[in-house]
Amino acid sequence: MAVDHAAAEVDHLAAERAAARFDVEAMKIAWAGSRHAVDVADRMARLVASDPVFRKDNRTMLSRKDLFKDTLRKAAHAWKRIVELRLTEEEASLLRQYVDQPGYVDLHWGMFVPAIKGQGTEEQQKKWLPLAYKFQIIGCYAQTELGHGSNVQGLETTATFDPMTDEFVIHSPTLTSSKWWPGGLGKASTHAVVYARLITEGKDYGIHGFIVQLRSLEDHSPLPGVTLGDIGGKFGSGAYNSMDNGVLRFDHVRIPRDQMLMRLSQVTREGKYVQSDVPKQLLYGTMVYVRQSIVADASKALSRAVCIAVRYSAIRKQFGSQDGGPETQVLNYRTQQSRLFPLLASAYAFRFVGDWLNWLYTDVTQKLEVKDYSTLQEAHACTAGLKAVTTSATADAIEECRKLCGGHGYLNSSGLPELFAVYVPACTYEGDNVVLLLQVARILMKTVSQLTSGKQPVGTMAYMGKVQHLMQSKCAVKTEAFEARALRMAVNCAQNIGQASNQEEGFYERSPDLLEAAVAHIQLIIVTKFIEKVHQDIPGHGVKEQLQNLCNVYALYTLHKHLGDFLATGSLTPKQGALANEQLGKLYAQVRPNAVALVDAFNYTDHYLGSVLGRYDGNVYPALYEEAWKDPLNETVVPEGYHEYLRPLLKQQLKLSRL
Amino acid sequence: MAVDHAAAEVDHLAAERAAARFDVEAMKIAWAGSRHAVDVADRMARLVASDPVFRKDNRTMLSRKDLFKDTLRKAAHAWKRIVELRLTEEEASLLRQYVDQPGYVDLHWGMFVPAIKGQGTEEQQKKWLPLAYKFQIIGCYAQTELGHGSNVQGLETTATFDPMTDEFVIHSPTLTSSKWWPGGLGKASTHAVVYARLITEGKDYGIHGFIVQLRSLEDHSPLPGVTLGDIGGKFGSGAYNSMDNGVLRFDHVRIPRDQMLMRLSQVTREGKYVQSDVPKQLLYGTMVYVRQSIVADASKALSRAVCIAVRYSAIRKQFGSQDGGPETQVLNYRTQQSRLFPLLASAYAFRFVGDWLNWLYTDVTQKLEVKDYSTLQEAHACTAGLKAVTTSATADAIEECRKLCGGHGYLNSSGLPELFAVYVPACTYEGDNVVLLLQVARILMKTVSQLTSGKQPVGTMAYMGKVQHLMQSKCAVKTEAFEARALRMAVNCAQNIGQASNQEEGFYERSPDLLEAAVAHIQLIIVTKFIEKVHQDIPGHGVKEQLQNLCNVYALYTLHKHLGDFLATGSLTPKQGALANEQLGKLYAQVRPNAVALVDAFNYTDHYLGSVLGRYDGNVYPALYEEAWKDPLNETVVPEGYHEYLRPLLKQQLKLSRL
Repeated sequence: MAVDHAAAEVDHLAAERAAARFDVEAMKIAWAGSRHAVDVADRMARLVASDPVFRKDNRTMLSRKDLFKDTLRKAAHAWKRIVELRLTEEEASLLRQYVDQPGYVDLHWGMFVPAIKGQGTEEQQKKWLPLAYKFQIIGCYAQTELGHGSNVQGLETTATFDPMTDEFVIHSPTLTSSKWWPGGLGKASTHAVVYARLITEGKDYGIHGFIVQLRSLEDHSPLPGVTLGDIGGKFGSGAYNSMDNGVLRFDHVRIPRDQMLMRLSQVTREGKYVQSDVPKQLLYGTMVYVRQSIVADASKALSRAVCIAVRYSAIRKQFGSQDGGPETQVLNYRTQQSRLFPLLASAYAFRFVGDWLNWLYTDVTQKLEVKDYSTLQEAHACTAGLKAVTTSATADAIEECRKLCGGHGYLNSSGLPELFAVYVPACTYEGDNVVLLLQVARILMKTVSQLTSGKQPVGTMAYMGKVQHLMQSKCAVKTEAFEARALRMAVNCAQNIGQASNQEEGFYERSPDLLEAAVAHIQLIIVTKFIEKVHQDIPGHGVKEQLQNLCNVYALYTLHKHLGDFLATGSLTPKQGALANEQLGKLYAQVRPNAVALVDAFNYTDHYLGSVLGRYDGNVYPALYEEAWKDPLNETVVPEGYHEYLRPLLKQQLKLSRL
Repeated sequence: MAVDHAAAEVDHLAAERAAARFDVEAMKIAWAGSRHAVDVADRMARLVASDPVFRKDNRTMLSRKDLFKDTLRKAAHAWKRIVELRLTEEEASLLRQYVDQPGYVDLHWGMFVPAIKGQGTEEQQKKWLPLAYKFQIIGCYAQTELGHGSNVQGLETTATFDPMTDEFVIHSPTLTSSKWWPGGLGKASTHAVVYARLITEGKDYGIHGFIVQLRSLEDHSPLPGVTLGDIGGKFGSGAYNSMDNGVLRFDHVRIPRDQMLMRLSQVTREGKYVQSDVPKQLLYGTMVYVRQSIVADASKALSRAVCIAVRYSAIRKQFGSQDGGPETQVLNYRTQQSRLFPLLASAYAFRFVGDWLNWLYTDVTQKLEVKDYSTLQEAHACTAGLKAVTTSATADAIEECRKLCGGHGYLNSSGLPELFAVYVPACTYEGDNVVLLLQVARILMKTVSQLTSGKQPVGTMAYMGKVQHLMQSKCAVKTEAFEARALRMAVNCAQNIGQASNQEEGFYERSPDLLEAAVAHIQLIIVTKFIEKVHQDIPGHGVKEQLQNLCNVYALYTLHKHLGDFLATGSLTPKQGALANEQLGKLYAQVRPNAVALVDAFNYTDHYLGSVLGRYDGNVYPALYEEAWKDPLNETVVPEGYHEYLRPLLKQQLKLSRL
């Protein structure tokens, strides 16, 4: 049940909802994963939507300072509610999601705590985690620097051990070594996990993490030697400007030796650098975790945009009548369908591949615990690649949804500009998408090179073991065409690299092609996991049929969009490509009557959607009109500046006026 | 000569500039069109850049009201300078371009004045134009309504003739008939050309234009019966929020009969509706004019984004060293080149096709004057299609350039977020791109259907006359492959539509394919016009060679991106496609040493670029650091809200605090 519109007096989308050929309540369960997941999300969404402190309809109109103060207020209020209501971890996390405003708490829970858990010794965890859990300290994750992003090994900040005092001296030797971008750093955090080059006994041991206190716990002022600030405004109104991404410089700041995170390696009292016997592979587990949550977020962001665009496309009418009669819903136009329905299908596709990644994380973790590293590389490639492909596709799709709403999508009240601006950093943070895809490509090349040696690829790369078959056959079955395309592109790259005199040089020269091969591999995974999902038992009238349709839309749309790959590799014939395109048109007609119900199944409140165009009740135009008058420019009928700058112009007295 | 950095003390890009293999000054002329064009643009750019009133580095930090007031100030100051310095029309227009802030003057000069010129009688022009030319009135263009955009015939506002008083009664009968979006309407304009359904003698004669006074010329208050306001915040910070896009409702507002724009049709004193003998085709001339200027703007916006991304990619270093040595300029990476250089080539491609469109407009106008309508339809299709393809590509390219700058591209100080947000409406205004492409497709289908009747297509469609040859041949020559692809896609569509029982229904069913066919046709035009440009005499050492390279990059990149089209239509073999891709890689290597000089040739001032990352001197990091501290959040070290919302949290006193 949709939540904050129970008392709606009108439902302009009622006819659309009545036309749906499946059980929406059952689809909500398929989307959310379980009845429990629907219920708890519903409860948390209502809790947030009904609380005036969490209003966000005015957010794009706030000044930077007011917006930041509003974020602090919401964070404190959310924590108060979490404590008062004794919410579970699951509930608290959902509550924060529905508050839907980036802020320091995201980094505190999402990066600071996990870093200590993953890299701290048991003793360190015992000391620091309780402080963090109770918010007695606020932490962030200070890795990137002004001059250094993706390449962690290029960081310049130093942590030099001083055996005289048993301390590390944290220092920023250059301007470009200033820590730059960490969320929560600029204004809110009291502590940070700082990444710096560890230097002891005159030797540089590379990048390590250190817990550093930044601000006084008494008055929040920066500690001596610490320079802190916000790095300035970012894309969009509202959006990520609620976050205090920060700049941090150290001038020989001293911390006790035991604030180096020492799970993987230690520095002894004497200054000796010692590796522990904890396997470094454990670090990959954390990366898999963070990236699988980014894939889950992609499906959330994309589904919100699609929900807005589908509902408004059912309300908006254009053309279709030559004689002044009623116009046609734009959702009926084939062009609208061919742009929008693949995005609807992608939202479901990313949701299910995200669920599977979540399972993969558990699987990898369990294997790591018994020191089984056999699937780790493949899991790492797969999460890195899925992070890259889903975030890029989602960013593009949100903007496409905005355009699909016509001019009104450009208004802040549509919610889409902010959704886009707040989402796009996902393409860059936690691994730039191009860098990640090249990592995938590297593992693909390695796998191809091992095929002849008889080493069987595992997991999502298992299909490459069918190399003999896939290199030769004409593909009838859809999945096989995706497999053949991915494998043949990878093999082509490998052959071309093989011809280079220097392999590394060859990899570099072929990197644009390698990106395409990596994308082909990842799209295969998404298609495969969607197909696996629809092969499962899915209860509810018509639910399975709808998901089957969407799965086909996703696969055929991807095929059509990348037809060049399929034809160039001979994985499909032109005729098959044309047939697939025919089929796609027919699928759109199947999706059409179910479209509104398929976005209702996301079960988003009007508060969470934050869009006048995406209102559950479809009562768009009165709401747009009403929103307009709230703009500060409308506080006066005659605008400020009229007497200085308009009247003198109109009265031809400009030369006499002071400007 | 680059303009506002003459006194720069450092040039971090000096080595890049020295490496260029062509004469940059000569390229500036090739880009701008003439020595004169370079000089006058240079002079106006400096005039703006050196005037503190025109500063825009703080724009994204202004509140909506302050931003609007700043726009009024800049507009008045610009007008003052134009009058004082007795600037020519060309100079004034360039000055406004370099002020680079959307505002009411854009609509006054760009839409209000042309509407009166195009649709007003001589008498009406004599009365109204002098008032507009001297800014004794400020005008805008009120066409779109809350519920009606692309479909002009769907507008609801009425203009009912009252023979008793010899007046029209302008009225908004419904909420959805509220005028919505017109720039300059919300706060600044005193007058508007209002589009409304003309009703006389009880009959609806469809949409006509009327000059309507909206505000008092004495105190700027709305006239009786007129409701006016701003429609609210839009995408981005700064960006288009400087514009007062407005809402307007009429409650039976009366205007004299002679304020109907009567060049094409009149209403007599008795209320008779009379068509004049002025051909309606003249209206298309205006549309061609407006759209060709949008194509020119696309190359400006795209070249700004590319300039920023190329310069910063030459400064920014990542990876490339395993041993702590210096990292590699990201501009050296093949992946960066394969994403960035096609956009650089596109900037040049759009520039030259824009120049050609400008010529086409003159040609069409001259033909119209002698009532030669033979090329009008083709010219209309061509400008509509070029508007659609160049604006979509530019919007995507700006965002791609932003991503190519890594995380820092997300900062407002990079200039790219604002450039994107202010640009994207071009995809929607003056004809939604999808609607325009379908118009192109309709004309393509008509042309195809006439091929058998022996009617020879003209202008940019002339290639379709080679149908026999293009349908059969394997294409060796590059242009021919583009011709074959476009023609075969059009013919495929026509055949599929032909199989439908109802042609209109067939067109509707095939509209996604028709969009693709239209894009193929338009890309052929862009490639052809670039090739024609390169075949001209172009003076200057190495200039022609560089343009030849960029032309090849544009063509081969387009080919690679749409390889599916070429292969599916048999216009290329997979082997040719692979060779083209090989060739593309080699071209990137040719472009690399010239890249910075190729963007220097745009001759943009640092003021106009508005980007810390795109600075001429490449001194990026100190400037980024300095910009950060200007953010209002940095006014205090301890943020506002600390005592209310952070301290109680940290001190575990949240339950006691008021929230």
